[in-house]
Amino acid sequence: MEIAHTKNRMEQFSDGIFAIAITLLALDLHVMHLSSFDFIGGLNEISVLLPNIVTFMISFITIAIFWVNHHQLTQDIKHMHRTVLWANIIFLLFITLIPFGTNVASTNPTHPLALTTYALVLFGASVLFSILRYYVHKGLGEEKISMERSMVGPFLYLCAVIVALIHTPVAYFLLVIPPLYYFLPKARQQ
Amino acid sequence: MEIAHTKNRMEQFSDGIFAIAITLLALDLHVMHLSSFDFIGGLNEISVLLPNIVTFMISFITIAIFWVNHHQLTQDIKHMHRTVLWANIIFLLFITLIPFGTNVASTNPTHPLALTTYALVLFGASVLFSILRYYVHKGLGEEKISMERSMVGPFLYLCAVIVALIHTPVAYFLLVIPPLYYFLPKARQQ
Amino acid sequence: MEIAHTKNRMEQFSDGIFAIAITLLALDLHVMHLSSFDFIGGLNEISVLLPNIVTFMISFITIAIFWVNHHQLTQDIKHMHRTVLWANIIFLLFITLIPFGTNVASTNPTHPLALTTYALVLFGASVLFSILRYYVHKGLGEEKISMERSMVGPFLYLCAVIVALIHTPVAYFLLVIPPLYYFLPKARQQ
Amino acid sequence: MEIAHTKNRMEQFSDGIFAIAITLLALDLHVMHLSSFDFIGGLNEISVLLPNIVTFMISFITIAIFWVNHHQLTQDIKHMHRTVLWANIIFLLFITLIPFGTNVASTNPTHPLALTTYALVLFGASVLFSILRYYVHKGLGEEKISMERSMVGPFLYLCAVIVALIHTPVAYFLLVIPPLYYFLPKARQQ
Repeated sequence: MEIAHTKNRMEQFSDGIFAIAITLLALDLHVMHLSSFDFIGGLNEISVLLPNIVTFMISFITIAIFWVNHHQLTQDIKHMHRTVLWANIIFLLFITLIPFGTNVASTNPTHPLALTTYALVLFGASVLFSILRYYVHKGLGEEKISMERSMVGPFLYLCAVIVALIHTPVAYFLLVIPPLYYFLPKARQQ
Repeated sequence: MEIAHTKNRMEQFSDGIFAIAITLLALDLHVMHLSSFDFIGGLNEISVLLPNIVTFMISFITIAIFWVNHHQLTQDIKHMHRTVLWANIIFLLFITLIPFGTNVASTNPTHPLALTTYALVLFGASVLFSILRYYVHKGLGEEKISMERSMVGPFLYLCAVIVALIHTPVAYFLLVIPPLYYFLPKARQQ
Repeated sequence: MEIAHTKNRMEQFSDGIFAIAITLLALDLHVMHLSSFDFIGGLNEISVLLPNIVTFMISFITIAIFWVNHHQLTQDIKHMHRTVLWANIIFLLFITLIPFGTNVASTNPTHPLALTTYALVLFGASVLFSILRYYVHKGLGEEKISMERSMVGPFLYLCAVIVALIHTPVAYFLLVIPPLYYFLPKARQQ
Repeated sequence: MEIAHTKNRMEQFSDGIFAIAITLLALDLHVMHLSSFDFIGGLNEISVLLPNIVTFMISFITIAIFWVNHHQLTQDIKHMHRTVLWANIIFLLFITLIPFGTNVASTNPTHPLALTTYALVLFGASVLFSILRYYVHKGLGEEKISMERSMVGPFLYLCAVIVALIHTPVAYFLLVIPPLYYFLPKARQQ
């Protein structure tokens, strides 16, 4: 009963934060007053939103994958330790920062530091998710917890953090790999 | 149990996004400092909000109908496939874009491209909802899934996307038809 | 089962909208850069927020009362009709408009039309709540549904709508009466 | 049944507000267009966000602790009195004000009145939480309700309110103590 109550509210609270963060992403698509009324001129004006649309798509799919994995993970929870509760909260801290990171990157799409900031937020979220997964599995009494799979995300995001300082286009590419990896047939058994 | 857990969190997450998107719509009604203190002058100033009120109403009712249909659809889910989960997520992506589309249209109420953008978002949401419905029914083991009804919404929104480029008033009219159609007596058995 | 599912999602969706609308109210308390560093000067600058604080308090308590009454009402629902579902949705439409109405009033605290707009939103919410209550009780098979109590709120808000055009201070007073009335000892049996 | 329904919706509504308030905090991290493209210059520009990051961290952890304590408290609720419902609502009022208080402090990080405002909001939230705890325990029929522990938070925040007017750095320090105190080993039995 205690575990059911805590788990239920933790999921409710987490789903709320996931839902708000993912909806706030769309606020990054700034609305502008279109001044030229011909088709080509209007398309040119709208094309300014291109970096925003790219980062919106990356962030949306990334948060969605975190949500899917999160719901699969909490399913397994049998005992609720304070560590699980707080690992989840710090994980959510990074989720709430994703709209901010997305914004920084879309406002300065070619600035190394801006992209590093964005990659750092995603790196933080993936590290915390791996920590959360570790404690959930530890709570299940598993002796050997395989963390290899859990290292892929953090590793790729860490690469993006560093590469962003050197060559921005490659960094964008690195940020797209974790979602692609997730949708690969083999990853489906995750 | 697994299905109950996944379904519960999917509904919770979806309801959160529906609730936020529908509440953010009202932020589109910009508040202004009224400068003229007489009745007629004040009404004139407020009348600037007219396109915002029209698009607010269309979007609110449209999201509400999507929500009603969504809750009726998830009721039927017996087995949860990854495809259902992701069709739902991409459907929600378009729901989060509705406040943006509404904003674009109300900021440029007579601009063809702005209205096309708005219609495109609603078109995307209705297509994804039909896809979601298809996979839910497929998961129920139905052999022949009648998709005729599911085509009405996407078809009307597609017309609006195209007509918006030619004649904006008719496009607004087309955007109002799906809600009206929904409330027609016959549609009630849906 | 059907009723349980629909009721659960209707409550979840409603609670989401209540929670967002009530939290967005606080965004109306605009943050300013304080320029004078002495105590009195700073207090003077902050005092500009006074109308915002007044309308924030009125709206917060009003939404909270609607929420309390709403949760008491849905408790009784045994059968879910389409009319109940849609009366609830239109009621929520007015709830999402409350932050907008609050904003209009706090931006133009002495403007008759602004206060009328605010009162109109609250009037709409209270009328729709009475309609919702009517359909819930009708669904219970009650033959004579006493609507006298349900008339008090709409009546007072309607007075505020009209009085706001003539004398703003009295209108503010009228907007405070429904909450006060609610907390009166006798009203507790509601 | 009645208590289960009320408790469920109270928790749902509270979780919604907690989730929104904690997510809105991140909106305080304003996004800027970075103008200098070299590493040091960019870091300098970003460093303007330092006070925002500090207050963001304080507020995030503080809301999270309130949430953890809130979920532990509601677990114990056996009877739902109107006082519990309304103590909870007024507690939530202060939670919705935390993003505002955070904003005021981060916009004017060295202004005594701004920091006092921030501390006042946290003070209000902690006082209301103690009141809520009192009524929940009273509802359980406990004769002697130990309130000593419940006094620590309000007392420290009250000190911060006063000290902020005299010496801002010490006030920041005082705002960090309640979270630290919470994480102390002994506090874990709370």
